Amino acid sequence: MRIVLIAAQSLDGFITKHAEPGTAFTSPEDKAYFRAALASFDAGIFGGETYRVSRDFIRDRLPALRIRIVMTRSPGRYAAETMPGALEFTSAAPAVVAATLQARGIQRCALLGGSHVHSLFFEAGLVDEVWLTIEPVLFGGGTPLLARRADLRLELQTSEKLGAHALLLKYRVPR
Amino acid sequence: MRIVLIAAQSLDGFITKHAEPGTAFTSPEDKAYFRAALASFDAGIFGGETYRVSRDFIRDRLPALRIRIVMTRSPGRYAAETMPGALEFTSAAPAVVAATLQARGIQRCALLGGSHVHSLFFEAGLVDEVWLTIEPVLFGGGTPLLARRADLRLELQTSEKLGAHALLLKYRVPR
Repeated sequence: MRIVLIAAQSLDGFITKHAEPGTAFTSPEDKAYFRAALASFDAGIFGGETYRVSRDFIRDRLPALRIRIVMTRSPGRYAAETMPGALEFTSAAPAVVAATLQARGIQRCALLGGSHVHSLFFEAGLVDEVWLTIEPVLFGGGTPLLARRADLRLELQTSEKLGAHALLLKYRVPR
Repeated sequence: MRIVLIAAQSLDGFITKHAEPGTAFTSPEDKAYFRAALASFDAGIFGGETYRVSRDFIRDRLPALRIRIVMTRSPGRYAAETMPGALEFTSAAPAVVAATLQARGIQRCALLGGSHVHSLFFEAGLVDEVWLTIEPVLFGGGTPLLARRADLRLELQTSEKLGAHALLLKYRVPR
């Protein structure tokens, strides 16, 4: 199973504008690419905060994703929202989550934020690729791409323009 | 006079690796590009900390720069290092520094860090272009590109590879 981190950020590395949750700052071209890209994945992993901010989007507008996993310290809080086999909540470690998805036949899994989930999966050595949209904005503050210090070297695979001023950069994470 | 911010950063937006000063993380291709690029500038502006970290480089290895300006709250501390007309220390505001350089015939000025100087010049509306090298690394912490919050929209001009995995992105700052 391949795990691909997909995110959009400001040029200076923030996945939110200041304290505003969500990705209202991204371009229409990024939003269109993001929906199209997700069609090639059969599972998605989200953090609890990302789920709370984008709940309707995650529940209703990601039809390609057979299984959506929300990583949370309190899965019991979400018992009423659980849809077994389609939307599940877990406090398991990333390696357990990945192994479980693989055992269920998932081949391509998108890692869809936020920064804590990004750091958790990098720290477990489970990220295969990073697909990062760079919007042409500077925020000087906000939620960083990673929640904790890291020292990772990637390999640039492709770079393409999304619309007039955004860039989509795809990196491989060497093992 | 055009003012161009030139910097190298990690993919997640840090101009230093964690608390390590300097840019040891940048690729040989970026270092070669940086030296070649500076040949087209006739002045450079640095913050006091950047000067202290890169003192020998700034004093001796930037022959193209006719005038080097160090922005510091304590210019008197550097009286013994001042070379009038070549290396000067000032606590003046960015607008005053820019007007003075322009009056002395400077046409192209490079803004060379750190994050406080970047923010000062953006806040004064004095940055015309941003030339940013994106190294294929994730640090999850370090000195950010800007010291303070901002809300700036840029226009992508060009994107090119530097070596196998770094990218040089050039943006215009609309006025």
